[in-house]
Amino acid sequence: MINRDRLDRLAGELSELKLDALFMGPSTDLEYLADLKLFEDERVKGLMVARTGKCFAMVPLLYREEMTAALGDAVSRKVWSDHEGFTGAWAAGCRELGLTGGSGASMKRIAINDGVRAVDLIEMRAAVDFEWVNGAETLSPLRRRKDETELGYLRTSGEIADNVVEGISKFIRAGITEKDVQDEILRLYAENGAEGLSFSPIVASGPGGSMPHYTRSDRVLRSGDFVVVDTGCRYHGYCSDMTRTFCLGEPDDEQRKIYGIVLEAQRAGEAAVRPGATGQDIDRAARRVIDGAGYGKYFLNRVGHGVGIAIHESPYMIEGNTAPLEPGNVFSVEPGIYIEGKYGVRIENLVAVREDGTAEPLNKFTRELIAIG
Amino acid sequence: MINRDRLDRLAGELSELKLDALFMGPSTDLEYLADLKLFEDERVKGLMVARTGKCFAMVPLLYREEMTAALGDAVSRKVWSDHEGFTGAWAAGCRELGLTGGSGASMKRIAINDGVRAVDLIEMRAAVDFEWVNGAETLSPLRRRKDETELGYLRTSGEIADNVVEGISKFIRAGITEKDVQDEILRLYAENGAEGLSFSPIVASGPGGSMPHYTRSDRVLRSGDFVVVDTGCRYHGYCSDMTRTFCLGEPDDEQRKIYGIVLEAQRAGEAAVRPGATGQDIDRAARRVIDGAGYGKYFLNRVGHGVGIAIHESPYMIEGNTAPLEPGNVFSVEPGIYIEGKYGVRIENLVAVREDGTAEPLNKFTRELIAIG
Repeated sequence: MINRDRLDRLAGELSELKLDALFMGPSTDLEYLADLKLFEDERVKGLMVARTGKCFAMVPLLYREEMTAALGDAVSRKVWSDHEGFTGAWAAGCRELGLTGGSGASMKRIAINDGVRAVDLIEMRAAVDFEWVNGAETLSPLRRRKDETELGYLRTSGEIADNVVEGISKFIRAGITEKDVQDEILRLYAENGAEGLSFSPIVASGPGGSMPHYTRSDRVLRSGDFVVVDTGCRYHGYCSDMTRTFCLGEPDDEQRKIYGIVLEAQRAGEAAVRPGATGQDIDRAARRVIDGAGYGKYFLNRVGHGVGIAIHESPYMIEGNTAPLEPGNVFSVEPGIYIEGKYGVRIENLVAVREDGTAEPLNKFTRELIAIG
Repeated sequence: MINRDRLDRLAGELSELKLDALFMGPSTDLEYLADLKLFEDERVKGLMVARTGKCFAMVPLLYREEMTAALGDAVSRKVWSDHEGFTGAWAAGCRELGLTGGSGASMKRIAINDGVRAVDLIEMRAAVDFEWVNGAETLSPLRRRKDETELGYLRTSGEIADNVVEGISKFIRAGITEKDVQDEILRLYAENGAEGLSFSPIVASGPGGSMPHYTRSDRVLRSGDFVVVDTGCRYHGYCSDMTRTFCLGEPDDEQRKIYGIVLEAQRAGEAAVRPGATGQDIDRAARRVIDGAGYGKYFLNRVGHGVGIAIHESPYMIEGNTAPLEPGNVFSVEPGIYIEGKYGVRIENLVAVREDGTAEPLNKFTRELIAIG
């Protein structure tokens, strides 16, 4: 069912942004607003919310039963069948909400979210044209302030990930494959009560570690490797996300040095969470440490991203984000050094912003360098 | 690496369609063209191919290493970092391929595929506007004619699914949950050499069966249920997809009747695969049986979809598709009857079109009604 309170707040956002409506395809926005999880296929489906608070749902015939059950009878449903195509239902819904008929300066401003495909936008434009607005962040002002219930889920999700990473620190050894480590992570999550993954675990050993989102799993771990383990689960839908980098065998001097820089950067990022701090401040605080040590060109991405029911959401810890952090924001602090052909080191915690503006770490497993074997 | 032969044929398609270029985001198109599997996050990445055959890749800094390795040095790479955003790299790539500078009637016609998000198209338009074309099917003329290698993979993928469905027919019983059946399906796939799933298995018992893409798994199977099992795996990337509906206990007269209608419709659909037949002909042949029996309003979707490295692709067996089938086409024939609140029945095989225009079934497990226990 649609959450009335969240719907009302969305309608308020739309007024403030001078938007006439927001259309949301399958996405975490729809989970947040209406607990609506949709099967992902090429059929256009979702919910249009006007700033009046009125709605219509785009419903492929094949999903009529479950979408009706999920949305309730109060929401107008525009049902379309495979052979009809979706544009007639789309135009009818837009007419019903009074969104059609404008042109030039009176054309309606319609935001769409990140669950809509560009190919479908092209068809929508041909059916009813609007002034289209990027609505990927329209719900962010609501979503990024987590309430106590949400924070509780995020804390538990973080605890589970902590337990799994602690378990994996005792499992990793030379001679096994990255895949073996991934399988054990899955087993540990099931054992620790996770309700699913926030993403497929990254286990990047040796040279694979220089790719922040390494996707392979076939390498055999060897003595001397750094092994980056980046993983998280879901609890009541809310994601955890943490990274630790282990050393197989005794680290050499360069490994110690690089690990030390990343750890100092990660701590500096967390420590920068203070009243009035912005996403840019957190990015700069961590980046400054790595730049200062001469490794700036080996740090390839922003310092962090918000986390909630989406694994990447607002607020972002990035140069240019000058909005002050707010109590209830939850985000990652994850600096790294990535040296192509050699290895990578990343250390990542999630933190929540407390009422007093400081950081509550949601991960408590040690960040100190662990040498295995 | 980019497959030069496929790239040349794509360039030919672009000329024929009077398109200046096609931009592909993360998608099976990119797997087909360049064996490029990209991590799915919000960062814009992919490949622009001009009809001259020239290309550029959009490369987030964080993915530079793996995208360079995958594409080779011959492809121009436009690298962008998180804090820069993607639009500068986008505009530079478009300039490099000579796509910018047009306006009005001289504006370039650029197709985008189904791997691009609408929110990113809005930003692309703001950076460099084009006449945007829905390019979801631009590669379809190439992709839908499977060669012998591809057909071999599809046959093996189908055999594995056949074995798994046979195995599950001996496992299903009253008293276990849908989740238990799903777990056993996964175990059987691993045992039978599948390389992954083409989609999460659907196990829809009793009233859940009326939803073609049922997503729950918590119900306990009971005597008297129809149980719809829809599943497929991947083999060398190629998907299988089949459905059987089992009856727990002896079927009653209505169950026998409905199952018989669906089976006759499925057979009629396969039999309609003949030289010169179109997707519409297949849809009509199967639908006619269900309509004729008075159950037309309980059949909610098209009769079938193409299958390859994507689980839904061209050609579609649907009213309005008047293009003749071609040798090498592979698609599902999957009529069903879905009675809300009661149950559903679906029977699905994949078939390949032979050189002589007839259907080669890729699934051989019996379609006769199996009563269990």
